[in-house]
Amino acid sequence: MRTIRQRTANSLLKSALVEEGAYRTVAQAVTWLSSFAAERPQVVREITFEELGEWSFAEKTGDLVHKSGQFFRVTGVRVSTDLGLLTSWDQPIIDQPEIGILGIIARDIDGVMHLLMQAKMEPGNPSGVQLTPTVQATRSNYTQVHQGSRPRYLDYFLNRDRSRVIVDQLQWEHGSAFLKKRNRNVVLEVDDDDLPAEPGFEWLTLGQVKKLLEVPNLVSMDTRTVIACLPIVDAHRKDWRSEIGPNVVTSLGAAALDSLGSPEAHSADYEVQSWLTDLKCRHHLTVVPIGLSQVSGWHRTDRAISHSDAPFFRVIAVDVESRSREVVHWTQPMIASRPRGLIAFVISQIDGLLHVLVKARAEPGSADTLILGPTVQSALGFESTRTSGDRSGIVDLVANAAADDIRYSNVQSEEGGRFHHVESEYRIVEIADGDRLSLPPEYLWLSLRQVHELLQFGLLSVEARSLLACLSFL
Amino acid sequence: MRTIRQRTANSLLKSALVEEGAYRTVAQAVTWLSSFAAERPQVVREITFEELGEWSFAEKTGDLVHKSGQFFRVTGVRVSTDLGLLTSWDQPIIDQPEIGILGIIARDIDGVMHLLMQAKMEPGNPSGVQLTPTVQATRSNYTQVHQGSRPRYLDYFLNRDRSRVIVDQLQWEHGSAFLKKRNRNVVLEVDDDDLPAEPGFEWLTLGQVKKLLEVPNLVSMDTRTVIACLPIVDAHRKDWRSEIGPNVVTSLGAAALDSLGSPEAHSADYEVQSWLTDLKCRHHLTVVPIGLSQVSGWHRTDRAISHSDAPFFRVIAVDVESRSREVVHWTQPMIASRPRGLIAFVISQIDGLLHVLVKARAEPGSADTLILGPTVQSALGFESTRTSGDRSGIVDLVANAAADDIRYSNVQSEEGGRFHHVESEYRIVEIADGDRLSLPPEYLWLSLRQVHELLQFGLLSVEARSLLACLSFL
Repeated sequence: MRTIRQRTANSLLKSALVEEGAYRTVAQAVTWLSSFAAERPQVVREITFEELGEWSFAEKTGDLVHKSGQFFRVTGVRVSTDLGLLTSWDQPIIDQPEIGILGIIARDIDGVMHLLMQAKMEPGNPSGVQLTPTVQATRSNYTQVHQGSRPRYLDYFLNRDRSRVIVDQLQWEHGSAFLKKRNRNVVLEVDDDDLPAEPGFEWLTLGQVKKLLEVPNLVSMDTRTVIACLPIVDAHRKDWRSEIGPNVVTSLGAAALDSLGSPEAHSADYEVQSWLTDLKCRHHLTVVPIGLSQVSGWHRTDRAISHSDAPFFRVIAVDVESRSREVVHWTQPMIASRPRGLIAFVISQIDGLLHVLVKARAEPGSADTLILGPTVQSALGFESTRTSGDRSGIVDLVANAAADDIRYSNVQSEEGGRFHHVESEYRIVEIADGDRLSLPPEYLWLSLRQVHELLQFGLLSVEARSLLACLSFL
Repeated sequence: MRTIRQRTANSLLKSALVEEGAYRTVAQAVTWLSSFAAERPQVVREITFEELGEWSFAEKTGDLVHKSGQFFRVTGVRVSTDLGLLTSWDQPIIDQPEIGILGIIARDIDGVMHLLMQAKMEPGNPSGVQLTPTVQATRSNYTQVHQGSRPRYLDYFLNRDRSRVIVDQLQWEHGSAFLKKRNRNVVLEVDDDDLPAEPGFEWLTLGQVKKLLEVPNLVSMDTRTVIACLPIVDAHRKDWRSEIGPNVVTSLGAAALDSLGSPEAHSADYEVQSWLTDLKCRHHLTVVPIGLSQVSGWHRTDRAISHSDAPFFRVIAVDVESRSREVVHWTQPMIASRPRGLIAFVISQIDGLLHVLVKARAEPGSADTLILGPTVQSALGFESTRTSGDRSGIVDLVANAAADDIRYSNVQSEEGGRFHHVESEYRIVEIADGDRLSLPPEYLWLSLRQVHELLQFGLLSVEARSLLACLSFL
């Protein structure tokens, strides 16, 4: 009973290793997404805060709020911590105290799990359309606050009678931009052989989604975070080789699958636990809510709220005209950030098992003192690689990696409903003998099984989950 | 590497199954504790708040505070939730925003792990002395705020060079009385064969501590919560039978050890995860800090703060004269509660594996919407069994259990540094065919392995941990 049903597990593993789906090739999926976008022109213009109309700065706090009190609110926090280079600062932050659903419907087709993926436009997407989960719904969506139509397939997630759960976890969004915002990441398996992919939806394998992650900015952050939760190889099931043909996976892929399925790891689980406990006890993170007008060091023009001298993200206002959204015209605040970030994992095969080098960070929107993230997370203006102050050489190792050592490199964007063209290079760098690397205390090598276990309990940041999704076994 | 070192694991398992330690029998340990108390008379008197001296009610908030700003503070919260019968209330709560250490030093003696246990007086202990961990230290203790002497053996926990970690976890205290208070529960193994048990300390096996749990109020809550974290049988190690002689454990003990070591369980892990996620999404818990003077429905006399009509706990003031504490005379506020509570687990052998019936509760001091606790937790005035409003019959099943079905029953007290004679009957009731019991959504059967995994991530309440410690395998 512990493990996911055997048939589901095998079907998932094959899904990760198959790039030819039942209905569409990878090339056809790209074409489908392009023509979807072409048919739905979307015009997004930066406007002044004045032009936001239904959004305005609240008198007392200066917070940027919608007149309905719904959606979200841009407010401010005063942060102090002794973990990381930045020890005290103010910043704007998004407060959206509701749990959204990011849900994917899955179905076994001839022994291979297929995921019902959606083509969707969001105002912040660099190239308009992206591949998203079957359902992305805020509570406002399904309680119809903004009078749009009810998201298709939503009923599967509200009423589970026709499905079996594979993934159902609460996961944190960006702790650097959201105040304790969680989403419910769900994957449900349905038996309905006739369940149609309605227009704008396609059944794809996990391997196909991973292949599409080689195209810049095409697979949405929401998709990445959900597929990162999938149990490809269960920790108690070490026979993945017997389920797939020989020579299907690369040696790196084999080290990854072995790492997912093995109880062994460079640090024992109780050592990982102790490392986390020690960091939480040694460091503090204090986050005091302040009004947006109290945020010190930032200034507001008629079009942006920016930091006076640091390259932090900006708060801007946009006007959106779109034929693919339920509401075809609206305005909203967004988070913008230039230049492009760098989000990277250093990985290494230690005793034949793939390990990733995680870093513990104190982020203002975290639930606890710290959250585990990628080795390098230079994004939204935090931890700029140029000014990282890194003396360990780890940032340099990533930023200056030889092409031969780069296992993944592509531009991906953050969620396009709140982030406006926020792009980062997602990079995975493999090094030999990672266990010989001298590490500052906030870094630790974890096996993929350990990462997956910590992930289930909400301890992996959205950036880490997002990047892990890019790891292909092929 | 994943599992604890094999020798340590075997030594721990034997420790749980051995009631004859290297130095003391159970009877000698009882005698030792009694004579320790006899030599250290402690007089605890209830006094007026006025007589507290260095403690007073702050002008603005009405909070009960120490003039140094140290120790802790009694403040107020306004709570609303839709999980549980009580949906909105105000209450006093203890705010002590520092992480204390509850640490036990362990040492293998002839293949059996021994724990260095301490005899210690606390003002709230019903019978004065209790068996406590090697070290109980608040940050104030080791930064010497109250000018006492430095706790013995503390250096082992501050400097780990001479030990290996077995347990190192952050665990929550009572969510009904403390505002997000955590302790660091630590067990360290030392190799030092000559490490002496100083006066007031003894080396005992885990089996002996469990045996002492049959004496009322003798084993402190702090001891219970730390030993509950010990990995007696690792989930990846199913060979516990080969390590111990035949017929050592009871059939219940065997079902417990099997449950700890098996990947199987009544609900699969992903179903447990989904159950937790669903409850957190369906329910809310709002806790608004208010000053103690704002707490509505409570009234203050010169000697107590009590609820006007509900049988909640009271805040009182005490004067302590003691020869065993570093400071021999002091005053402090405490939490008192009458009548005696009932804290109980229903257990059942399902498919040969011991399962416990946990209940999810929203507690004002919780970090998240809910925490998992015992089946019945009628304590500190919450969920009185008489007024439980329980329609499922589960409370009745526990309260009216036949003597034959009661596997454990004894009076235990909550931590005597903050709780004044707060006693509950700790009870474990076994039922047959637990899986056939019709359960409201906030209850779930978990195997002991699942309980232990969730416990590591801080999801088990102190009451649940405390009660699990009472489960003997013998």
